[in-house]
Amino acid sequence: MNSSSTEDTFSNNTVGLLGNGSWATAIAKIFTDSGIHVHWYFRKEEDVEYIKKHLHNQNYLTGVHFVREQISPSSNLEDVLEKSKWIVLTIPSAYLEETLEQIKFPLDDKIVVSGVKGILPKSNRLTGSYLKEFLGLPENQFVVISGPSHAEEVALNQLSFLTLGCVDLKISERLRQMMKTPYLKIKVSDDVLGIEYSAALKNIFALAAGIAKGLGYGDNLQSVLISNATSEMKRFLKEINSSKRNINKSVYLGDLLVTAYSSHSRNRHFGELIGQGFNLKEVGQKMKMVAEGYFASRTIYNLKKNIKVKTPIIDAVYEILYKKKSPKITFEKLIEKFS
Amino acid sequence: MNSSSTEDTFSNNTVGLLGNGSWATAIAKIFTDSGIHVHWYFRKEEDVEYIKKHLHNQNYLTGVHFVREQISPSSNLEDVLEKSKWIVLTIPSAYLEETLEQIKFPLDDKIVVSGVKGILPKSNRLTGSYLKEFLGLPENQFVVISGPSHAEEVALNQLSFLTLGCVDLKISERLRQMMKTPYLKIKVSDDVLGIEYSAALKNIFALAAGIAKGLGYGDNLQSVLISNATSEMKRFLKEINSSKRNINKSVYLGDLLVTAYSSHSRNRHFGELIGQGFNLKEVGQKMKMVAEGYFASRTIYNLKKNIKVKTPIIDAVYEILYKKKSPKITFEKLIEKFS
Repeated sequence: MNSSSTEDTFSNNTVGLLGNGSWATAIAKIFTDSGIHVHWYFRKEEDVEYIKKHLHNQNYLTGVHFVREQISPSSNLEDVLEKSKWIVLTIPSAYLEETLEQIKFPLDDKIVVSGVKGILPKSNRLTGSYLKEFLGLPENQFVVISGPSHAEEVALNQLSFLTLGCVDLKISERLRQMMKTPYLKIKVSDDVLGIEYSAALKNIFALAAGIAKGLGYGDNLQSVLISNATSEMKRFLKEINSSKRNINKSVYLGDLLVTAYSSHSRNRHFGELIGQGFNLKEVGQKMKMVAEGYFASRTIYNLKKNIKVKTPIIDAVYEILYKKKSPKITFEKLIEKFS
Repeated sequence: MNSSSTEDTFSNNTVGLLGNGSWATAIAKIFTDSGIHVHWYFRKEEDVEYIKKHLHNQNYLTGVHFVREQISPSSNLEDVLEKSKWIVLTIPSAYLEETLEQIKFPLDDKIVVSGVKGILPKSNRLTGSYLKEFLGLPENQFVVISGPSHAEEVALNQLSFLTLGCVDLKISERLRQMMKTPYLKIKVSDDVLGIEYSAALKNIFALAAGIAKGLGYGDNLQSVLISNATSEMKRFLKEINSSKRNINKSVYLGDLLVTAYSSHSRNRHFGELIGQGFNLKEVGQKMKMVAEGYFASRTIYNLKKNIKVKTPIIDAVYEILYKKKSPKITFEKLIEKFS
């Protein structure tokens, strides 16, 4: 990016938002609270009409109210993208490719900010990698947003923490300014790959925590599971990208804790139903939103075949969800491996 | 210890138990379930009479029932000590010295197993150090028991995890055999000092977690607090004893998690009341059992003066409990320091 483009970037703070779940709504709230207008893409025109009329998301974080002038809802994807310099992605990893495949022009002059947790199942890639390979997004124009944060707490203005990861710290700093609100503490990092992977892994571990709960294990076992998950995450990330990282930082361990321990956690809830004995079809009927960990466990398990790293928890979750292994017996065996 | 004493040790599995709270009761259950007889010391004769008659602890874990032949309750400390090769201490750190001061003979032929979490306030020493200095206990005859475990879950036969720390692994192995039950997974370690200190620190961090909750912070902040506490614990332990340790193991991180996150946690509950605005007197009235973190925060804070290590969470807790600083303002300043 030459210097005039840099000026462009930093004077142009138009934001386009793709996604309409809890995190999309929380992100829209953060930007609008910070005084930034949001061009908000909804796939269905009826959702556009609803939010134009009622000024809140029909289905998610319905208590968050917007001011009419702050948002421009639209079902025209190309239009939203053209109007925006910063494109924020909050579509669940399972469905993101479907949307991205509709984009017919390269994104090389955009900055894409991804809140997508997980690996994209069709292409088996992280979001940053997909965008670079299929949409020509330069690496330094990719920012990853990670926790630890629950969208629900952001909605309630409860103090929340985010980390912005980008190899270009000027870009993450600029984005930090655009998200400046009293209830957010924002850190910056350049460990993009580590953050993307840990976001995927933590969903698998949270799912495991849920299975343990559903099976009837108590706090004692949960804490051992989570501490072993932390070590497993550290080992895995080191194999992927050996840059020195402190696994106990908020963006890794904190995000894992908030997902694994919280009652808001979809992945945990999903796991709990599995542990209690419901099959996948029944779980799908009981849950409104997709649990990322379900997809992540398969893609990470398959990815792992090329890497030499022990991941007993990930393996156990995979075997339960995809190989129809008994949760009870699989966990008994898993526990034998804990330190 | 010469070889005939070693034989003595390993053939003599008489156990004396000092303490009568939840952990004492859980420990008594573990030994008796494993077929080991327990000589159980109670300070008050009326407690001895009660348990002889009703075969359960009057005030703690009252649902745990003993068989008459399994336990020998007594208020004669000297007698209990004389009869036992293995002395198990589960008296809260605040009161332990009071009991130990009554012991008029050296313990050089005993093995002392300490479940004491915290620093002894009068002497400002860890239990192992106190026993060595004042009661002549050789270092290799000191075993520390640590979690992560809640006594309540042990009482319910829920899978629990313990770590036995001793510089002599033969002794911890022997003890592991004496505590063999279906609901316990026991690890051994030689990091005695690290385990003793982390047990003290985790109570302070759990108290901090409670203050955060009492102040109205949500899961997001809790997870950031705990991940920062993990780093703080790692830094502190490294200063004390630089031996290589994996802070993410169950005995360190797991024990921290189970104490900080669980609804059973006394320290967390204590902190919550402080965060809600109750003063120390009112908190003392509301709580039946002492919160170790209250004492630990002062002794660790004072200990720390001789060590160069940053401990913002410990400092914050100390200032709130002992310097009458406002919990709200102290926490706002603390959060600025989080990574």
